[in-house]
Amino acid sequence: MITGKNYIGNTLSADGSKTYTTFNPQKNIENTVVFTEATSDEINEAALLASKAFQIYREKSGNDKASFLRAIAEEIEALGEKLIEVYTSESGLPAGRAMGERGRTVGQLRAFAAHLEEGSWIAASIDTAQPDRQPIPKMDLRKVLVPLGPIVVFGASNFPLAFSTAGGDTASALAAGCPVLVKSHPMHAGTGELVAGAIIKAAEKTGMPNGVFSNLNSSGIEVGQELVQHPAVKGVGFTGSIRGGRALFDLAANRPEPIPVFAEMGSVNPVVILPEALQEKAFDWAKTYAGSITLGAGQFCTNPGLLLAIKSDQLHQFSQVLAEEIVKTEPTCMLHPAIVGAYERNKTNMVSRNEINVLAEYSQEVKANYGRQIVSKVDGKTFLENPALHQEVFGPFSLLVECEDKQQLEQIIGQLEGQLTGTIIATDTEIANSATLIAALQNRVGRIIFNGVPTGVEVCPSMLHGGPYPASTDARFTAVGVDSIKRWVRPFSFQSWPNNLLPDALKNENPLEISRTVNGVKTTGKI
Amino acid sequence: MITGKNYIGNTLSADGSKTYTTFNPQKNIENTVVFTEATSDEINEAALLASKAFQIYREKSGNDKASFLRAIAEEIEALGEKLIEVYTSESGLPAGRAMGERGRTVGQLRAFAAHLEEGSWIAASIDTAQPDRQPIPKMDLRKVLVPLGPIVVFGASNFPLAFSTAGGDTASALAAGCPVLVKSHPMHAGTGELVAGAIIKAAEKTGMPNGVFSNLNSSGIEVGQELVQHPAVKGVGFTGSIRGGRALFDLAANRPEPIPVFAEMGSVNPVVILPEALQEKAFDWAKTYAGSITLGAGQFCTNPGLLLAIKSDQLHQFSQVLAEEIVKTEPTCMLHPAIVGAYERNKTNMVSRNEINVLAEYSQEVKANYGRQIVSKVDGKTFLENPALHQEVFGPFSLLVECEDKQQLEQIIGQLEGQLTGTIIATDTEIANSATLIAALQNRVGRIIFNGVPTGVEVCPSMLHGGPYPASTDARFTAVGVDSIKRWVRPFSFQSWPNNLLPDALKNENPLEISRTVNGVKTTGKI
Repeated sequence: MITGKNYIGNTLSADGSKTYTTFNPQKNIENTVVFTEATSDEINEAALLASKAFQIYREKSGNDKASFLRAIAEEIEALGEKLIEVYTSESGLPAGRAMGERGRTVGQLRAFAAHLEEGSWIAASIDTAQPDRQPIPKMDLRKVLVPLGPIVVFGASNFPLAFSTAGGDTASALAAGCPVLVKSHPMHAGTGELVAGAIIKAAEKTGMPNGVFSNLNSSGIEVGQELVQHPAVKGVGFTGSIRGGRALFDLAANRPEPIPVFAEMGSVNPVVILPEALQEKAFDWAKTYAGSITLGAGQFCTNPGLLLAIKSDQLHQFSQVLAEEIVKTEPTCMLHPAIVGAYERNKTNMVSRNEINVLAEYSQEVKANYGRQIVSKVDGKTFLENPALHQEVFGPFSLLVECEDKQQLEQIIGQLEGQLTGTIIATDTEIANSATLIAALQNRVGRIIFNGVPTGVEVCPSMLHGGPYPASTDARFTAVGVDSIKRWVRPFSFQSWPNNLLPDALKNENPLEISRTVNGVKTTGKI
Repeated sequence: MITGKNYIGNTLSADGSKTYTTFNPQKNIENTVVFTEATSDEINEAALLASKAFQIYREKSGNDKASFLRAIAEEIEALGEKLIEVYTSESGLPAGRAMGERGRTVGQLRAFAAHLEEGSWIAASIDTAQPDRQPIPKMDLRKVLVPLGPIVVFGASNFPLAFSTAGGDTASALAAGCPVLVKSHPMHAGTGELVAGAIIKAAEKTGMPNGVFSNLNSSGIEVGQELVQHPAVKGVGFTGSIRGGRALFDLAANRPEPIPVFAEMGSVNPVVILPEALQEKAFDWAKTYAGSITLGAGQFCTNPGLLLAIKSDQLHQFSQVLAEEIVKTEPTCMLHPAIVGAYERNKTNMVSRNEINVLAEYSQEVKANYGRQIVSKVDGKTFLENPALHQEVFGPFSLLVECEDKQQLEQIIGQLEGQLTGTIIATDTEIANSATLIAALQNRVGRIIFNGVPTGVEVCPSMLHGGPYPASTDARFTAVGVDSIKRWVRPFSFQSWPNNLLPDALKNENPLEISRTVNGVKTTGKI
């Protein structure tokens, strides 16, 4: 069922000589299917095919694109147990997580389908002519969003379904009217091929042009680099490390024709814990945070890697409970030996520093590729003076910073790099009296949370998943939720255009019955 | 009244030793006021002041910011005749144009004020909590647009008012809640200082923080470079040449923290003239286009620099009438000797090529700094083979490309670089039968025009001024119209946030009575 080949549009192809396999971290063995990396010729062929498909695909109606997205969701579900098996064998993640992520993936596809069917997202705006206006006549102008062109999507290591082949980036780009070229993630190439096959089947069933989707295998960074530099490519979606995302951003910015890159990158997701909240609930918060830090072996973009609090007896109590919980939580399997290796290296680098104290560490023996959680501690002054301590350790790791006072806490917040999320644990009185602190935190993050945990990224219109650099390369967009479609479109104006030749969204009759801005006023009416 | 100093926030300052004057191209003499270029210290001071002002300014209500913008418009009008005098003395443009541009400038400011007062632009989105949802509860999430931070705006040589100190970039950034640092254009530094003074007065009158606006003099590129690289700066607006815009884009992309640059750059604004339209109206179109090519000495971003047509007797007639008109139109004064010099150089480079024929040239004597218009001609094959011929000659210049047939015409359109506008001159039958050609042109431009001229950029919500690179550095935004505010904001989410601490736009009570998306549905109601 899994061939190990690339999908160059609808065609399976394996012209290359570079091969690789995926790895089962639970069993600690290589999987058997051999994948063939895409060659430069295959990459070029896929990109040109996407460019050609774009000419047809961009003219498809919202309903046609919605049918395509719904068909993808159905084909993914039709993969049944096989998909769950391959997913778990390539990620070390449990079947429950696989099923949850599949639900999220098909849910996203259907949310975009509904968004297209409703249709108003296209932001139709009409200003009618005033031929008699003085001193010069006003021309008829009508504006609508149009797709950018072929988009490259990088599969993410930590979300083999929801942020990979048919994940949020692909769903939003296809919804926008852009063909997609997926750079398959090498760690879950089999999951990727299965999902790619589902997309191809859906494209064929719903009459979408060959080339609207391609899936390119890669074991290293070259395939991605070639894709980002290909002249036919008009945008890039990426989820992963700061180093990887920045490298792609730089490549794209240095093209003769620069293209937008939306890279969702690292974040330590600072959690500010205020004293009174601990007085009330030190025990509860410690337990909650032990859970959030270790959830999924800490392999979430929104993992709370940094806890900021002010020295106090209550903080001491919080630390003790947190330590107890950390020590007794069962570690889980990480995604890949390479990820375990990086985690162990980064963790060791961090805690071997003299200024860092280990607060709690799971030190019992674990199976191969299991990630042993650790929480360490540092004082506020040291943290301020060492930017290296601000960096993310991807995995079940968190650093507790004990601040001298509120002033030092605010100083630390002001110096943080851009983050996906910031959380405040506080009583109602405390939060009401923390305007300065909140403003400082707000300035550094994309989403702010009151009395909760940053893990858990709800897929809904009001979600912002992104944030100031380096949380993302463009804070003006979100990677999650229907608004993520805005990354792949541009506004386009028609001036004095014949009504019958306008796109339906802009015709006088408003045949799509969408909400439009007509002469500055929102309306679903005709003209 | 004009001091020649910089505004570092509310303070006039001239610490530097590098000075310069502006030039009166009509009189062909230097103006007398001496301007002092901003020093690195002054730049740094202004940027830090802007950063501090941002903490206050970003919290201002829409109504407060609207009062500020309206006050700026009033203060500009209060400058009266003095502003028109200085404008004309620094630009060579006539008083009528100065007054028109002033009207456009204050009109833009008031349009943004009205946009803020209405308030729905902020895109408030609310998804209420579902504590009982299975398998996990849904948290309350609320999203709204927030300002990026201090923005650098580059004054444009060709619009001393509407695209400079208080022009569209400044108005949109201030409306968004971002302080503005203007890099004043050296050619009209006096106009710039007058307008800057009006902004400062308005800021003081309406209680805006010191540093919400600064105006920095510069004679070369260094001041702009330092501003774009300053860590406090979070975005850049620019209107000018491809070389200049790309250099700033590269600087911004290479910062440790890359920032968005919206540069509106060059464009030849192709005009496709189909045969039947000429059969009907060769004479009229030739006259109209002679007017559009020479309007304002061709110094508009949307000047029609490229006419594409198919060989025919009617085209011959069109060419003849165009030639007659070009020869008899009175040339006008250009902005500055440097611009005249560049125009003459580029024009000569173009027409001295063997493959280019001059169709018509104004060859009578003109006053110093007047731009003599020229229209030249080349065959389609030669144009296809010489990318150098695709480049803009800023000034009253146009190149007519005579294509062999429709196929060659479409091939040329497919090879064009990104453009601000594309125009089609056609009969109703022709346009209805030109789907392929239209699609190709649409893919290369930001605005498409039927039977009109590209000059004249209406300020209204449905205007798109921008386009694929190199027309702009980010086709996803417009530089003109209220939607240009979107360049300077980012979405931001609040999770489980106390209702009384939310911004008004997100409170349950909807005190601003704006249109919001609540659980996916547009409403102006409460929750």
